[in-house]
Amino acid sequence: MRYSKAFGKSLRQSPKEAQAQSHKLLTKAGFIDQLSAGVYTFLPLGWRVHQKIAGIIREEMNALGAQEFQMPVIQPKALWKETGRWETIDPPLFVTTDRHEKEYALGPTHEEVITDLARRFVKSYKDLPFSAYQIQDKFRNELRATGGLLRTREFFMKDLYSFHAEKADFEDFFKKVVAAYTKIFDRVGLKTLVSQASGGTIGGDVTYEFQVPSPVGEDLVFFCKKCGFAINKEIVAEKNIKDTCPECKSKLEQTNAIEAGQVFSLGTKYSEAMGANFVDKDGKEKPLIMGCYGIGVGRMMATIVEVFNDEKGIVWPTSVAPFQVHLLAVSSQQSVNSQAEEIYNKLIKKGVEILFDDRDESPGVKLADADLLGVPERWLISEKTLRQQAVEVKKRNEESSKLSKISDLV
Amino acid sequence: MRYSKAFGKSLRQSPKEAQAQSHKLLTKAGFIDQLSAGVYTFLPLGWRVHQKIAGIIREEMNALGAQEFQMPVIQPKALWKETGRWETIDPPLFVTTDRHEKEYALGPTHEEVITDLARRFVKSYKDLPFSAYQIQDKFRNELRATGGLLRTREFFMKDLYSFHAEKADFEDFFKKVVAAYTKIFDRVGLKTLVSQASGGTIGGDVTYEFQVPSPVGEDLVFFCKKCGFAINKEIVAEKNIKDTCPECKSKLEQTNAIEAGQVFSLGTKYSEAMGANFVDKDGKEKPLIMGCYGIGVGRMMATIVEVFNDEKGIVWPTSVAPFQVHLLAVSSQQSVNSQAEEIYNKLIKKGVEILFDDRDESPGVKLADADLLGVPERWLISEKTLRQQAVEVKKRNEESSKLSKISDLV
Repeated sequence: MRYSKAFGKSLRQSPKEAQAQSHKLLTKAGFIDQLSAGVYTFLPLGWRVHQKIAGIIREEMNALGAQEFQMPVIQPKALWKETGRWETIDPPLFVTTDRHEKEYALGPTHEEVITDLARRFVKSYKDLPFSAYQIQDKFRNELRATGGLLRTREFFMKDLYSFHAEKADFEDFFKKVVAAYTKIFDRVGLKTLVSQASGGTIGGDVTYEFQVPSPVGEDLVFFCKKCGFAINKEIVAEKNIKDTCPECKSKLEQTNAIEAGQVFSLGTKYSEAMGANFVDKDGKEKPLIMGCYGIGVGRMMATIVEVFNDEKGIVWPTSVAPFQVHLLAVSSQQSVNSQAEEIYNKLIKKGVEILFDDRDESPGVKLADADLLGVPERWLISEKTLRQQAVEVKKRNEESSKLSKISDLV
Repeated sequence: MRYSKAFGKSLRQSPKEAQAQSHKLLTKAGFIDQLSAGVYTFLPLGWRVHQKIAGIIREEMNALGAQEFQMPVIQPKALWKETGRWETIDPPLFVTTDRHEKEYALGPTHEEVITDLARRFVKSYKDLPFSAYQIQDKFRNELRATGGLLRTREFFMKDLYSFHAEKADFEDFFKKVVAAYTKIFDRVGLKTLVSQASGGTIGGDVTYEFQVPSPVGEDLVFFCKKCGFAINKEIVAEKNIKDTCPECKSKLEQTNAIEAGQVFSLGTKYSEAMGANFVDKDGKEKPLIMGCYGIGVGRMMATIVEVFNDEKGIVWPTSVAPFQVHLLAVSSQQSVNSQAEEIYNKLIKKGVEILFDDRDESPGVKLADADLLGVPERWLISEKTLRQQAVEVKKRNEESSKLSKISDLV
C-alpha cells in the first residue's frame, strides 16, 4: 500500500480524553477512529490487523472441528423473554423496533438464538456433539465506554457454542477449547492467566477468563507464580480463598488484568429454559449440554498494543502486523525515490505485505511515523545506502540496523 | 465436512410462505434459517457460499486499488440530520437509543459516516483520489420482507466509496468499477443488464443498476438485445423513451429483473451538505467529488440460486459452491463405508473441499440430498463401483456419469 493514498493517515496526536496507551496509539497512528462513545471505525491499517487476528482465531476454531456460520444482529424480544434475559442482562440491551411495533435486541451474545436453532435442528444423539462459531458484530449498552477498544458498545467477537449429549464429552471439548485459546493467545504474543471467574448474566457453573496482566486492566486477579492457579478477585471471598494458593500453598500475588477471552460451562441452563432436547441412545428425551466461548477481536488488538509498545509507538508482533515491511526513501534525489519505487513494485508482485511511505515529507516525519505505526521491519533507502546498492534494515523491536543488498532482498 | 455433524441439515421441506425458488431451496437444503421476518441465520453450508461470494468481491475490489476497512453499524443521529436523511431515507431507519437517551441509526448505508471521515482525514489534493470499501452488516426497516434473501431487513453488503478532486478522474474510476462489477457477476455465472435507474434516497445525477433477468425480480427493465442498452421502467417516462432503443433504434424488450448491484455518481451531494472539502493545486478549497457502489452479498447468493436450479434442487456454479465434491457411500457393507472414509480422509488432507454424507440413511435419501444441496461433483461409492476400484463421478449439471479409478482421484 502507498501511504500517500492510505485512508486515515497518522494524526500525530492522541485524543484528549484517552487514558489507555492502546487508545492513544491506535488513534494517533490512524488505525481506528471514534464515531461515537465506544463506537469505532477500523481504518484500513487497523482493519488489516483486525483481519489478521480474526484469521488466527478462525484457523484454531477450524482445527477444533467447529463450523463457521453467522447469526443475525437483530433478535426478537420473544426469544429473550424465554430465558428472562430481556430484563436481566447486564449491561442492558440496545433495543430497536420495526414498523409493526415489534421489538428486537441488538445481540450482545447469541445463546438464545443458537439454542432456538438447536431445538429445531438437533433431533437425536446422532446429531451430537457439534460446535459452531461466528465472528460477528456485537452490541452492549454500556453506560460509560472509555478506554478505546478495551471497552466498547459495538465490537466484533468470536463466539463459539458447543452442544453435547454427555457431560464427559462436554468436559473433553471444554479442555480442547482452553488449549485452542492458549494457542491463539500464544500466536499473537500474549501471555495469559487462566482465571476462575463469575459467569455474570451469561454463565452456568464453571467459568474461566483468559486474563492478560496489565496496569490498565479493569479486573483484579490473584495468581500463583509457582503452579499457575489464578482467580478473579470478585469470587475470592465466595471460594473462601485467602492469600495462599489452594493448589500448592504458595503465596498468591495480585495483578490488574485485561479479560481477553472467556469460556463458560453452561450445562442445561439454556436448553432447559428453552426446551432444547434430543433423544438419547436409550430413547429418552434429554436437555442438550452446552458450552460457550468468547474472544473479543478488537479488545485483543488493544491488548496486544498495551503489551507491545514503547515511547515511540506500537511494536506489532509479526503474526498480527498490518504489513511486514515499511519501506521509506529519505532523500530529495529523484534517483533514490525511483529506486524505492522499483523495490516497492517488485515486492508487491511477489506478494510481500509492504507499506511504502511515498509521501513528500521530511525524513524526520517519515521515521517518526514508521516507529508510531510499528511495522516489524523498516527498510530505509538513502543516497548513502544506495552507494552500496543496499537498504538499511531495522527491526522495530531492536535498536541496531544492518545494510542488506537490494539484490538479496528483492 | 461430515454431513452427519453439519449444523443445519436439509429439512426436505420448504417454508409454507415461500414464493421464490431461492427462498424455498436455500431453506430446504439447510443453507439459511429465518429468525424473524427478513432476518436470517446463515447456517454453515450457507455461510461457506456467502464467504465464497465475498471473497470474489474482495479480490476485484482489491484489484481496483480500493482499501478494505470497517465502519460501525450504530451511527449518531446528528450525522443523519446534517444530510436530512434522518427523516427522508426510504425505507426508514431502524433506530436505537443508549442509556443517555442519545439516538442512533442502524446503518442501511454509510455515506454520512464516510463523508464525516473524509472531511477530517482528507486535507489536500495530494490525499486524492482514494477508494475504500467494507463488507458489512446493513439494516433496512422494510414494511414487508418476503422472498428470502432477495428482500431482507438485515444483510451483508459490499459498499465501496470513492473520492476525487476532478470530475474526469471520477468518471475514469466509475468506468473501472462498472468493469469490476461486470467481472464479479461473470465470475459467479450471472449475466447482467447494466440499466439506467433512479438514485432513490442515495443517488446523485447518474445511477446504474446491474439487473439479472428473472421472473421473480421486482424491477421491470426495458432493454435492447442488439446494443445492450437498458433502462429501468421507473425512469422511462422521465427520459421520454418509448419502445425504441435510443442508441440503435432497435425495438426494446422488457423483462422482470433482480437488482444485484448498483453504482451511483454522487457528485458533491454529500460533501456540500457536510462540508467535506479539500485544498486543490490552485490553493482553493473545493468540495470532494464522490461515488458509491453497492452489492448485496446475500441477495447475490439468492440470485445465483434463482438462475441455477432444477426440479431436484440447487446447481451451484463451481466458483461459489460450498464444496467441490459431495462424497457418498450407498451400501450397507462395512467395507464400502470404510473405503469411503479412507477417500474422505485422504482428500481432506489434500485440502479438497469435500462434503461426506456419512449418515446412516438410505441411498434414496442421500442421492436426493446431494441433488438438493447442489455441490458440482457427486462421487458415489457402492459395491459395484468398488469391484472396479472406482467411484461413480457425476456432475450436478450433467445427466451422465462416469467411473473414475480411485487411484486417479486420490
